[in-house]
Amino acid sequence: MIKPTHHIFVCTSSRPNGQQKGFCHSKDAFAIMETLLEEINDRGLGGEVFVTNTGCLGFCEKGPIVIVYPENIWYFSVSPDNVEEIIEEHIEGGNPVERLMSPE
Amino acid sequence: MIKPTHHIFVCTSSRPNGQQKGFCHSKDAFAIMETLLEEINDRGLGGEVFVTNTGCLGFCEKGPIVIVYPENIWYFSVSPDNVEEIIEEHIEGGNPVERLMSPE
Repeated sequence: MIKPTHHIFVCTSSRPNGQQKGFCHSKDAFAIMETLLEEINDRGLGGEVFVTNTGCLGFCEKGPIVIVYPENIWYFSVSPDNVEEIIEEHIEGGNPVERLMSPE
Repeated sequence: MIKPTHHIFVCTSSRPNGQQKGFCHSKDAFAIMETLLEEINDRGLGGEVFVTNTGCLGFCEKGPIVIVYPENIWYFSVSPDNVEEIIEEHIEGGNPVERLMSPE
């Protein structure tokens, strides 16, 4: 079994009971996920970087939220336009995108 | 904003499109999540340990799957009966439960 070098979690407001409501879902979270998967595939990172949708992560007013583990880096108010930068700078370059890390 | 010391992810087969199907969902994943939240609450760990449901993590035949970050520890074929041990030994004691870590 292969363990990921990075595991990216995207809140898609997926409730455990199957309902899907909430802020991140309404704010392009699904498009963020699709764009992440495309970038990872295009760069041949599929075996190393996992992308998983989640239920609510809290801090909804700062969503959509994307978390990268094992670094425990939280990105706030993410848009699909930010995905390329996150993959290039953080995942490939090792430099988390500071600008997107502040919940303020 | 508080960052978790441990972030526990439980596959509840929550698909990004809102549907919920799959192995982990059918195998007590929701009960695992509830038991985790109860144990964490009972032990006063609520501010430090986050629990989040996820979509499919792959390796479905080895589900239900529970992942603990930042350690990147994957637990397989978890049942609600294993939760107390995971919290006590791993989260509180710092010793991951080896017996549940093998996908074989």
